[in-house]
Amino acid sequence: MPKSREIHLVARPKGMPAAADFRLVETDVADAADGQVLIENLYMSVDPAMRPRLTAGQDLDVAMMGGALGRVVQSKHADFAVGDLVSNRMGFREFFVSDGKGLTKLAADPDLPVTVHMHALGMTGFTAYGGLLHIGQLKDGEQVFVSTAAGAVGSVAAQIAKIKGCYVVGSTGSADKAAWLRDEVGLDAVIDYKAEPIRQALEKATPKGLDVYFDNVGGDHLEAALRRMNTLGRIPVCGFISGYNSGHSAVSNLSNIIYARVMLRGFVGTDFMHLYGDFQRDMAQWLKEGRVKYQETILDGIANAPTALIGLMEGKNAGKMLVRLAA
Amino acid sequence: MPKSREIHLVARPKGMPAAADFRLVETDVADAADGQVLIENLYMSVDPAMRPRLTAGQDLDVAMMGGALGRVVQSKHADFAVGDLVSNRMGFREFFVSDGKGLTKLAADPDLPVTVHMHALGMTGFTAYGGLLHIGQLKDGEQVFVSTAAGAVGSVAAQIAKIKGCYVVGSTGSADKAAWLRDEVGLDAVIDYKAEPIRQALEKATPKGLDVYFDNVGGDHLEAALRRMNTLGRIPVCGFISGYNSGHSAVSNLSNIIYARVMLRGFVGTDFMHLYGDFQRDMAQWLKEGRVKYQETILDGIANAPTALIGLMEGKNAGKMLVRLAA
Repeated sequence: MPKSREIHLVARPKGMPAAADFRLVETDVADAADGQVLIENLYMSVDPAMRPRLTAGQDLDVAMMGGALGRVVQSKHADFAVGDLVSNRMGFREFFVSDGKGLTKLAADPDLPVTVHMHALGMTGFTAYGGLLHIGQLKDGEQVFVSTAAGAVGSVAAQIAKIKGCYVVGSTGSADKAAWLRDEVGLDAVIDYKAEPIRQALEKATPKGLDVYFDNVGGDHLEAALRRMNTLGRIPVCGFISGYNSGHSAVSNLSNIIYARVMLRGFVGTDFMHLYGDFQRDMAQWLKEGRVKYQETILDGIANAPTALIGLMEGKNAGKMLVRLAA
Repeated sequence: MPKSREIHLVARPKGMPAAADFRLVETDVADAADGQVLIENLYMSVDPAMRPRLTAGQDLDVAMMGGALGRVVQSKHADFAVGDLVSNRMGFREFFVSDGKGLTKLAADPDLPVTVHMHALGMTGFTAYGGLLHIGQLKDGEQVFVSTAAGAVGSVAAQIAKIKGCYVVGSTGSADKAAWLRDEVGLDAVIDYKAEPIRQALEKATPKGLDVYFDNVGGDHLEAALRRMNTLGRIPVCGFISGYNSGHSAVSNLSNIIYARVMLRGFVGTDFMHLYGDFQRDMAQWLKEGRVKYQETILDGIANAPTALIGLMEGKNAGKMLVRLAA
């Protein structure tokens, strides 16, 4: 019977989450019974979308949930063998017992690091792929703006747009990230929104307006983009990080969508699962060819999971923020 | 050479337009030359969408533009005969000469009053029809909210939704209009937003949430609707009258569209002209069967055109606001 450590939410954060809102708890985990497997998580993910659940949705004083990548260490289940890699939603804990529901066996690509399955080649990358191509109906050569373009979703969206021959502007919140987007990723224009006002910077960076704005931010970024949208433009809305912690997310010029006949559409990755096969084929190839680049920020140990989540909210990550639990 | 009177914009209104922002001007109109027609306008329309053009778009000290219905009084053009009825965009004037561009000959339905071609059976009704059925992708039996439901567009949208078997909530800004919607039109629930807060009233009126919100208002109405949207709901955005005069149109909870995966889409009637034939057939039938009811507020004489436009902004109209110029 292994010991497992897990992270509980113990207080609902007001504004930015703090370390005191979380607690590290040690528990006993049963061995796998008939029809069960015991999983040891190797990596877990922290994501912007976790923030609203801290306010409502995540119960207090139980282990939190989130994306993770684990390995089967005991199996009494016909579909799983010891050593199988499984993606799961049971992050924020080291071990767990499962009847197999919610586990997806991973055929890890031997030519790629296993962690890419947690971002560019996982649901994060799929969210960018489907959000841009399916929800955003991106056409080759269009004018595109991606906010938080150095983030896990944004960086994939921006690079897919480049692969499709688009003119791509990205925004980010630090000089380091701006440099990576300009020098490594090769975006056409990069805005450091902490160094210059987003509205004026976006106007300068988009002489031909915008056909697609891939929105991870809402608030002032969305207002700035609404001023630049071309007729029949599309705004896939993936996140609203401007409002998660501060509440400063009001949008004052939404009426702009009428004359330009713009579409906004909120979405989540499960809206277009029929594209998952296409995505895996395309993205594995782009990663191997080096056409989609990525960064990872990996903290070590379950005790650092709250730090990782808070750091993500504060923009301290470069690329995908992960916690290594074992490996 | 007839005399014509016309309305000029002479000052850009800040907030609500005032009589002093307009001037009545008398001009001489030439007779029709070869290839031309002389038109006498019978009726002209005032519309909420005119308001933003007063701030930017409409030149000062020239005749304003707007929908009108006229009659050919001289013709030296092969396609037009004296007596033809033509719809045109040359409102705010009594007479004008045209080379035929921008004129659409009207086959007036003898079983319907000619003015219905200026609202329910014209672009106003078509905007409601296409906005609801094409942009909003309305399905039979859905849960629907229409703002300014006693207005020219809203009343048609609400009644089409009823014809399609939907549960329909309408909002309006006076007890008289609310009574008409409840007693004559037969909506399932009616909100007088000046008598009760829109947010609480809409929550009470929509126990099954909302699948489609036909938005003419923006601002607080849109915020209230965003709280009630069902998964994969649709918001065709036709107008933003909340912001036209007051500027109080910021929307604070747009992030709701992410988890419910809601679509907003700004539109104008010309986005779906391929449906115009279907619309004319359906709407003429519904009007003759009494399934689409309407109200008209008709002021007399070109000098009253500014009064009509200001009155519309102040909600003084019942249904479509028209000005009779001749007839």
